[in-house]
Amino acid sequence: MWRELLPVGRHPGTGGYRRHAWTAADAECRAWFAEQARARGLAYEVDRNGNQWAWLGDPAAGDAVVTGSHLDSVPDGGAYDGPLGVVAAFAAVDLLRDRVAGPARPLAVVNFADEEGARFGVACAGSRLMTGALPAEAVTGLRDADGVPLADAMERAGHDPAAAGPDPERLARIGAFVELHVEQGRHLGGTPHPVGVASAIWPHGRWRFDFRGEANHAGTTRLEDRRDPMPAYAAAVLAARERAGQLGGLATFGKVKVEPGGTNAIPSLVTAWLDCRAPEAAVLEALVEDIARAAEDAEVTCESATPVVRFDRPLRDRVARVLGGVPVLPTGAGHDAGILAAAVPTAMLFVRNPTGVSHSPQEHAEEADCLAGVAALARVLGDLLPASASLDGS
Amino acid sequence: MWRELLPVGRHPGTGGYRRHAWTAADAECRAWFAEQARARGLAYEVDRNGNQWAWLGDPAAGDAVVTGSHLDSVPDGGAYDGPLGVVAAFAAVDLLRDRVAGPARPLAVVNFADEEGARFGVACAGSRLMTGALPAEAVTGLRDADGVPLADAMERAGHDPAAAGPDPERLARIGAFVELHVEQGRHLGGTPHPVGVASAIWPHGRWRFDFRGEANHAGTTRLEDRRDPMPAYAAAVLAARERAGQLGGLATFGKVKVEPGGTNAIPSLVTAWLDCRAPEAAVLEALVEDIARAAEDAEVTCESATPVVRFDRPLRDRVARVLGGVPVLPTGAGHDAGILAAAVPTAMLFVRNPTGVSHSPQEHAEEADCLAGVAALARVLGDLLPASASLDGS
Repeated sequence: MWRELLPVGRHPGTGGYRRHAWTAADAECRAWFAEQARARGLAYEVDRNGNQWAWLGDPAAGDAVVTGSHLDSVPDGGAYDGPLGVVAAFAAVDLLRDRVAGPARPLAVVNFADEEGARFGVACAGSRLMTGALPAEAVTGLRDADGVPLADAMERAGHDPAAAGPDPERLARIGAFVELHVEQGRHLGGTPHPVGVASAIWPHGRWRFDFRGEANHAGTTRLEDRRDPMPAYAAAVLAARERAGQLGGLATFGKVKVEPGGTNAIPSLVTAWLDCRAPEAAVLEALVEDIARAAEDAEVTCESATPVVRFDRPLRDRVARVLGGVPVLPTGAGHDAGILAAAVPTAMLFVRNPTGVSHSPQEHAEEADCLAGVAALARVLGDLLPASASLDGS
Repeated sequence: MWRELLPVGRHPGTGGYRRHAWTAADAECRAWFAEQARARGLAYEVDRNGNQWAWLGDPAAGDAVVTGSHLDSVPDGGAYDGPLGVVAAFAAVDLLRDRVAGPARPLAVVNFADEEGARFGVACAGSRLMTGALPAEAVTGLRDADGVPLADAMERAGHDPAAAGPDPERLARIGAFVELHVEQGRHLGGTPHPVGVASAIWPHGRWRFDFRGEANHAGTTRLEDRRDPMPAYAAAVLAARERAGQLGGLATFGKVKVEPGGTNAIPSLVTAWLDCRAPEAAVLEALVEDIARAAEDAEVTCESATPVVRFDRPLRDRVARVLGGVPVLPTGAGHDAGILAAAVPTAMLFVRNPTGVSHSPQEHAEEADCLAGVAALARVLGDLLPASASLDGS
């Protein structure tokens, strides 16, 4: 199952994955999902927002236990971020069918569309649309770097963009959501535990910094006559690193655009995007403020802000009890589980990542740890599902 | 004449010019040049490297006086950088014909191809090819951002790239070259002089800085686990500004590329191009070294380096004498005149630029100053041409 998915959307040069939403590589991943559902006799459906579902038991029965993650990737991402949670979900269903008897609650595997937002800029688009966290117009009107609207890309991939929007009926059917994900840090790396449970997702957001200057000839304009915005950007980068360290948060400038972008032209505009995260909202606010101050006259626009997510305490305690003494850890990364947590009881499991590297071709988890993750997920799902009847309905 | 050229290649949004070599906008500029030659009964030809010539008198007579500049532009450039020198050349020919009698030396107007290097990355391609400063293969093999080789672009524009290369016969016919250009700084701006004469072009070059790091998740990777190359780039930007001020040079980072370039990804690679200039070679070398040191582990590659150009002293003194007490000033900008100076006696005239702004839609020169430039150019050309016979050969 894992091996079939490995070559899809992998760039031969970088070894990284380019499975961006609604592209050919994404379509291949989605076909793989549909085939996994078919091969297991699970009822396959695509919801209004392009999320894929594979059902064991009757979806209409309600109080469903749902597990899964996403198959899309960041530019040149790793093999695990997303796919591990979907593959583990199918593998856990296989394990459960061997062990548990009883479909009193339906069980579903889900692949959320466009989690990374790599192509259109908004992360967790599929889950945000479903919960109504974002209005449909705000999402379908987004354009990729080539100017293609998300609505067109969806349509070309065979999905009707007009149907996109809140899906309260579907949400109401979910009793619990559990997402398994590769850890994207080294909290578990230093412990003997291959699996951990999430306590919270740090508040985080994206801020666009527009540093305006005046285009001019780099070879003739005296330093005192320049309005070069690049030094202000540089000051913001250094301040971000320093203040994040002092305040215990994270701050990253990973995307920069320079206009006109000529080697011999002083820039008229430097636009840079700040990704900023912190344990608490007040710390995040202070950190962004300090960076904006160092950025002098830059115009700062908040493009997205996600408040802290604290996962459902009873569910988290239940998961921790079932797994027995596993670490409970916060994370700085956004996930579909963070979006669903606002609507349904949600939990997350992390699988140990020895180097902590993620969003990179070097992202890795040991096979034994992945299998431990599958076993843990199966135990959690088995605990949530009443074991009174045959699970496969046969 | 000026008005016909004004709309060509102008971007309706920015108001800047995008007359890049061998594009449709460039072809329109070149058609304009051919028409100006035809309308004046000047003999029109295109040389092996795509430079356009309009001759008054017999080119084969030798010891020709040549004037002109270029018609191509940087991305979103101004109206004056280049075209002012070509328009002024034709206007000066018109003035001379009214005043001077005698074609003992031939006179030519030239438009050098691809001076800005905006599309293929090498500046002064037309003049460098002609003088042999660059081998033909090195130039015709260059590719633009879409991967189109310069040779193909030339060919599509109706010019045979196989003919490109050194043109010693043509060079041998030139007795003197005089280029008029809008000033790209504010030296004349603070004086009562609309026109100045160039003493030298500062040594200058382009250096590529590759800052390597490790791609990772911006939201989960602890600061101490990061290998983020952006802070090193920021340190280099600030050092460039500070050291350029201390050493009396110029240093600019105007082009940056970030990989993978995702908002939530720590970069694996930041590539930035440094444009650096100084009054003397030793100062330039020290400046680049200091910036490279601040850039820590960056890999620094010199992509182009142009030594100091000191314009022909007898010709410069003669021009200054003819014009009577005009300022003599150095410049940090490269020009075709700087390339030709290695092969033939060459001089440059600058027209006052009140703001000093160049390579920008805001580039400007007052009409009265442009006319003063034409008059000065006509006086210089008239002084170089023996006035013994009718200039128009009629």
